[in-house]
Amino acid sequence: MELLFLGTGAGIPAKLRNVTSMALKLLEERGSVWLFDCGEATQHQILHTSLKPRRIEKIFITHLHGDHIYGLPGLLSSRSFQGGESEVEVFGPKGIGLYLKTSLSISGSYLKYPIKITEVEEGIVFDDGQFRVEALLLDHGIPSYGYRITEADRPGTLLAGKLEEAGIPPGPIYKKIKSGEKVTLADGSVLDPAAFLGPRQKGRIVSILGDTRYCENAIELARDADLVVHEATFAAGEEEMAHEYFHSTTSQAADVAINGGAKRLCLTHISSRYDRLASKALLEEARRFFANTELAEDFKEIAIPMPQP
Amino acid sequence: MELLFLGTGAGIPAKLRNVTSMALKLLEERGSVWLFDCGEATQHQILHTSLKPRRIEKIFITHLHGDHIYGLPGLLSSRSFQGGESEVEVFGPKGIGLYLKTSLSISGSYLKYPIKITEVEEGIVFDDGQFRVEALLLDHGIPSYGYRITEADRPGTLLAGKLEEAGIPPGPIYKKIKSGEKVTLADGSVLDPAAFLGPRQKGRIVSILGDTRYCENAIELARDADLVVHEATFAAGEEEMAHEYFHSTTSQAADVAINGGAKRLCLTHISSRYDRLASKALLEEARRFFANTELAEDFKEIAIPMPQP
Ligand SMILES: [Zn+2]
Ligand SMILES: [Zn+2]
Repeated sequence: MELLFLGTGAGIPAKLRNVTSMALKLLEERGSVWLFDCGEATQHQILHTSLKPRRIEKIFITHLHGDHIYGLPGLLSSRSFQGGESEVEVFGPKGIGLYLKTSLSISGSYLKYPIKITEVEEGIVFDDGQFRVEALLLDHGIPSYGYRITEADRPGTLLAGKLEEAGIPPGPIYKKIKSGEKVTLADGSVLDPAAFLGPRQKGRIVSILGDTRYCENAIELARDADLVVHEATFAAGEEEMAHEYFHSTTSQAADVAINGGAKRLCLTHISSRYDRLASKALLEEARRFFANTELAEDFKEIAIPMPQP
Repeated sequence: MELLFLGTGAGIPAKLRNVTSMALKLLEERGSVWLFDCGEATQHQILHTSLKPRRIEKIFITHLHGDHIYGLPGLLSSRSFQGGESEVEVFGPKGIGLYLKTSLSISGSYLKYPIKITEVEEGIVFDDGQFRVEALLLDHGIPSYGYRITEADRPGTLLAGKLEEAGIPPGPIYKKIKSGEKVTLADGSVLDPAAFLGPRQKGRIVSILGDTRYCENAIELARDADLVVHEATFAAGEEEMAHEYFHSTTSQAADVAINGGAKRLCLTHISSRYDRLASKALLEEARRFFANTELAEDFKEIAIPMPQP
């Protein structure tokens, strides 16, 4: 599981940072990629990466501002010409359906693959047992969602030695124990799978938040997360301006991570007012509040390893 | 007057060529720029040029395929943040209005300048005395227009020496003659302005054609043009394929220029099947039919000088 930033700027594209998009690479986990937001020229950014558009399985849109959606019709259309045959599901606030249908139909774009559009409300928007995605509303003037992706815990490894010690010969029982099932033996005694399994492998939690002011739901979404991706449109000290424009400062992003008990923070949605040097200063100021902070850059990839027990 | 190519590819963006857009620079003539088509990431391409988005006065869309329009909402939105205050007029086939209004309203984009949308039909779509723009339908499966931009002729320079020889002293009469007015002198004799003016300066004609099969209207639009911009999605010999996909070959583009009596041809809408070397071969084959042919490249600028009398 890796997070690849495709666009990390705010509002309008600039040479240094394109408008927002990031790809959660789940290639090992499910052979697919999930996009979060799709600003204009996201498909152009992808040309400079190893991402295969046909691998894109789901696209989560945080909110409908142009810098987060204007790349969607083009990316979906081009995917048809790039070998995309599998379904794509697009999640987003109410309105994303009309936007997509209008753009695709007026331009006469016929996709060679099925597309499913889900206009989300707060709550669990996807759960297939392997991953669960929960959406909560943030505070951005228009409906803006944060998405919390939770990987299911995996059962511990089978302690075969211990089963043999208990006199259980290898066979179908081992499989049942591994899957966490209780087993009643011929003599009526019951095997508790917990006794024969190593510690459960905790799943990962990634929180990707749309544009927002500092708010409670951001903290809720960031709870115990392995990684929180949070906007930082303004510098610490500019809280008043951030409030007025429905955005956050670096220190507010850090507060979300701290108050949510998150392990790691990555700042994105960096204004073009900050050049390379100035954005490094943004990072340093955030690190004074929350040490485990990183700064997103276009084409930067962050590995999200399994949590250590 | 210069034509700056911003995107010269076909269908989907590639590293070498972005999807279609070009800017007719009328900075000397009227202090403004006219865009023709606006594929996705046209605003990104502009970042790498000296074009000022606030100078964009008119945008002509040839047809509604995504590779010609998906950059429009983003370009118009960003222009608001780039000092754009003057009106922009967008011309395009029926449907361009709904597309733009839907995209801008769903994304909550409020432009700080007036926008006027004109859904064109065949005929003269704009004429302010200095420039006239005429649209004719081509043959592309969906309505696709070609635009013919005609600059008004300018009156010849005043032959002051000849007026003095005729005994007319410098004064208000000179101004009248210069503007082409007949002047009746006190003695009743009439001065024909033609006798005291140099040859009229012919205006320029630029024809920018949308995607099309070889067709009569393309030739009509190209009539005596100083420059014809024509698609060349296929190579000479692939006429059958070009017909099937509603596109043209290099030799058909050359035929349009030849049969229209145009002075110069520029090929664009080059498929990504052609790399740098292969597209050079496209150019060479077109030149065998029509010598004064050029090949468009992203960021290539073509000067369009005044025709020599
Ligand atoms: Zn934004
Ligand atoms: Zn096209």
